Amino acid sequence: MKIGILGTGMVGRAIASKLVELGHEVCMGSRAAGNESALAWAAQAGEGASEGVFADAAGFGEVVFNCTAGLGSLDALAAAGEANLAGKVLIDVANPLDFSQGMPPSLSVCNTDSLGEKIQRAIPAARVVKALNTVNCEVMVEPARVPGEHVVFVCGNDSEAKDEVTRLLGEFGWPAERVLDLGDVTAARGTEMYLPLWVNIMGQLGTPHFNIEVAREVDSVDRQGA
Amino acid sequence: MKIGILGTGMVGRAIASKLVELGHEVCMGSRAAGNESALAWAAQAGEGASEGVFADAAGFGEVVFNCTAGLGSLDALAAAGEANLAGKVLIDVANPLDFSQGMPPSLSVCNTDSLGEKIQRAIPAARVVKALNTVNCEVMVEPARVPGEHVVFVCGNDSEAKDEVTRLLGEFGWPAERVLDLGDVTAARGTEMYLPLWVNIMGQLGTPHFNIEVAREVDSVDRQGA
Repeated sequence: MKIGILGTGMVGRAIASKLVELGHEVCMGSRAAGNESALAWAAQAGEGASEGVFADAAGFGEVVFNCTAGLGSLDALAAAGEANLAGKVLIDVANPLDFSQGMPPSLSVCNTDSLGEKIQRAIPAARVVKALNTVNCEVMVEPARVPGEHVVFVCGNDSEAKDEVTRLLGEFGWPAERVLDLGDVTAARGTEMYLPLWVNIMGQLGTPHFNIEVAREVDSVDRQGA
Repeated sequence: MKIGILGTGMVGRAIASKLVELGHEVCMGSRAAGNESALAWAAQAGEGASEGVFADAAGFGEVVFNCTAGLGSLDALAAAGEANLAGKVLIDVANPLDFSQGMPPSLSVCNTDSLGEKIQRAIPAARVVKALNTVNCEVMVEPARVPGEHVVFVCGNDSEAKDEVTRLLGEFGWPAERVLDLGDVTAARGTEMYLPLWVNIMGQLGTPHFNIEVAREVDSVDRQGA
């Protein structure tokens, strides 16, 4: 599959490298031509790796990942161009983290709106799926690094797009039963607002390589039988 | 131990009943004398159960639980009276959920502040510990209802107060290793902002009787040895 990656940071490089390993063709997009991080990535990622500006990557991909920093995502997507994204699955991995006031970061949007919703409104022709933003990028592409039945979430307005993302997550190593569908794109509020807790848990554990499992009670029928 | 419970809703009744079962003396406080829910609870909870206004419950308790609805918590605590809370552990179980615009609820405070922090600022002489607000009230007092090593969080500025809350949570059935200390009271932002995700997961599972486990990678040394 041809996949566009918007963003050249840790998250973009981790996902782009994994996709190349899996045999996909990947174009990494950055704001301006000649981005050093993108050039270095394309040079070492091997066959199937290329780079360009945001519009190049968006036009190249049958599926596009938004891996830009949340505060810059809307500008990046505007540069990518609505026509290059129309009808495509746009996987939004970004979090609207604002570090301008130091640690802990705050969110630039939350509560009654979210970055995922802003992106869907800004590019109505894209099929936005919020995913993977609740785990560190190394865990995104190697879930077995953390033991247990930990989960990731998808949400978005297009069910087929969520199915396609779930298949891609399967290639990353996330079994379908560990991909929880939280509903339409407004559920991005929840997964983005989880970030402050994520930051605090990271501080408590001393590592970003963790994730949450969801444990639920056994059915009441089973309880009565037990 | 003598314990005050502020609030007569599901959460207050669940915690108050559990504490009476455990052999504590419990006074449930409400806004106005003669609250039907509090009277009914005191009548059926048995030996050790009493009720009164917020100030009665706060004055009675050596430890006080805030189980009021988040939007009313500051008023309830003002009515309880700073003098009745001075030096005491005040366990804040509330979430600032605003249902005035329907479902899903929003938070009346979040991101750069939290209800837990507002309460600590409003009553500086109280030793506020935010706890239990990330689980349904039936899970709070019967964690074994959900299988697995799922966790709860504590945060607050007073370490001894957190230790005391951790001991009380142990009486509820939460082993100390499943009580994660997230740091000072500003971490209440994270546990309160988790609520929108909690609401979405509840919708996906169809039950409020769930909770999260935290899985972390094995140490890198172990990884290399493996």
